[in-house]
Amino acid sequence: MHAEKFGVRLAVCSLADSSGRVSSDDRDGLDDAALAAAVAAKRRGEKLPPFDATTEHRDGGAHDIVVDCTASDATHLRWRGSGAHVVSANKKPFSGDASDFEALTRKRCRWESTVAAAVPAIAALRLLVAADDAPTRIAGALSGTLGFVMTGLQNGRPFSEIVAEAKALGYTEPDPRDDLGGVDVARKAVILARTAGWASDLERVAVEPLFPKELADLSVDAFMAALPTLDASFAAKAAAAKAAGGALRYAATVTPDGATVGLVTAPLDSPLGGLSGTDNMVEFHTAVYADGAPLVLRGAGAGAEATAAGVLADMLDLAENIRP
Amino acid sequence: MHAEKFGVRLAVCSLADSSGRVSSDDRDGLDDAALAAAVAAKRRGEKLPPFDATTEHRDGGAHDIVVDCTASDATHLRWRGSGAHVVSANKKPFSGDASDFEALTRKRCRWESTVAAAVPAIAALRLLVAADDAPTRIAGALSGTLGFVMTGLQNGRPFSEIVAEAKALGYTEPDPRDDLGGVDVARKAVILARTAGWASDLERVAVEPLFPKELADLSVDAFMAALPTLDASFAAKAAAAKAAGGALRYAATVTPDGATVGLVTAPLDSPLGGLSGTDNMVEFHTAVYADGAPLVLRGAGAGAEATAAGVLADMLDLAENIRP
Repeated sequence: MHAEKFGVRLAVCSLADSSGRVSSDDRDGLDDAALAAAVAAKRRGEKLPPFDATTEHRDGGAHDIVVDCTASDATHLRWRGSGAHVVSANKKPFSGDASDFEALTRKRCRWESTVAAAVPAIAALRLLVAADDAPTRIAGALSGTLGFVMTGLQNGRPFSEIVAEAKALGYTEPDPRDDLGGVDVARKAVILARTAGWASDLERVAVEPLFPKELADLSVDAFMAALPTLDASFAAKAAAAKAAGGALRYAATVTPDGATVGLVTAPLDSPLGGLSGTDNMVEFHTAVYADGAPLVLRGAGAGAEATAAGVLADMLDLAENIRP
Repeated sequence: MHAEKFGVRLAVCSLADSSGRVSSDDRDGLDDAALAAAVAAKRRGEKLPPFDATTEHRDGGAHDIVVDCTASDATHLRWRGSGAHVVSANKKPFSGDASDFEALTRKRCRWESTVAAAVPAIAALRLLVAADDAPTRIAGALSGTLGFVMTGLQNGRPFSEIVAEAKALGYTEPDPRDDLGGVDVARKAVILARTAGWASDLERVAVEPLFPKELADLSVDAFMAALPTLDASFAAKAAAAKAAGGALRYAATVTPDGATVGLVTAPLDSPLGGLSGTDNMVEFHTAVYADGAPLVLRGAGAGAEATAAGVLADMLDLAENIRP
């Protein structure tokens, strides 16, 4: 498809997980059978074959793209020296040390899928910065899971029931506190801030978790069992938002001065207030997009297919520069 | 700004209108005083100095970007042979002959501002195509003027009163029929279709104008005076949309099979139904963005500043490829 439409030949030269990899030094990369076997092995819960340290594997070169779809803390910086390009869906290298972000993103790098998967929020933000119309404020609903919870609250359902359903549907992490704690959203806020050109660190984002400290150390089962104790408080917050003509949203608010992540009351006729379900949304308030009419992007912000689409688009975008 | 942030030095080498131009062969291009003088002359309604055919002006080269902010029918194809890049806010070269679109857009070209100004609808669509997730359907509200009219109808105001206000506010062309006729929206529909990879021609777009043929040949004053005869019909349509739980929108609907432009009833809880005022909006329905949850972009789609921002972002995007 890409060779025909774009004159770009994509070859998978190496596929790695935390313990091993399959590689090919062939110009055409791994063949379909080898790729299918590796994918099938991963689906069965197996690891890839251990890395054979006695074999010479070439490092990344100027025509290579290192694609990170892990949730690892390791940065891609070792690949930069070799001239390889980087495409990442992994938030951690971009929301850790500010100097890593700087070094990674200076060039030959795309990180669209770190925020809202393939929804081109990072691309739009980079275009705004390029047009000297950098935002004065960015507001976003950046968690499909928490969007689902907020829509449920808006519809008058008990918090505990919504979270249990989200867990059953696979919308939450195995431990729902990983979503409800807000740190995942905070990482995205840091990436948006840095992409806008603002200093930002995870430690300095004010995060409002959706459960009290007392529930932090329980087992998952005990946590789920304790959730009904929070229902009355969330019902009261949702009712107050409704009385004020709005709806509760779990939002990231990012400005040059800092970032906050937590509950807000969004007017029903605002883009954020009109959001429902698991969709993500980002609002960019700028000089051009002013007076309460921001640039808005909205769409599915999670899932394997959406993330793969974002990663692939990033690769093609870089390939335009790689092509001779 | 751009030299510092992006390592890209932008120089205005030539500034032209339909009758003349000011140019500089200097590496730094026209200086600020020359640019300010040219802009001031245009603001006074004057023309640029006539083109001096005895002077050698170089043609576009591989480091040049030809920027078209006119509404001219002329294409940019003469510049392509010389290797120059093209950035266009002008819809006409892209919505005319299909072969021109093909030749123009194959490479070294950006046309973001032809649709919804700087709202990155074209960039998003190109990313979708690159990710092999081309839309099955595109729906858009692509006229701020008609958006203003639709919001007025939704609020129960008479059609004639809304159009008169839009004209007084400068939202319409001097002859409001240029907006109400829908051809401007149809051109954008053609550009979206072609960018998605679908054959499309302006002649084959089904366009629903918002005034009857009988009013087409009147003077502008007579047309404005005749508008109240349409009020009852539009009020009935708006009421029917409301009764059906929706709102009237003037939308472009584009699929691989063709494009239509005209009135639709959008559910109030859909992105299109939730739109208000002069904002533009584009929905992309794809395999990834499915089940009634399209990828949505929304924002100011007209105005000199928004268009300039889109053009500048396009230039920087191309410059990344130009840079050595």
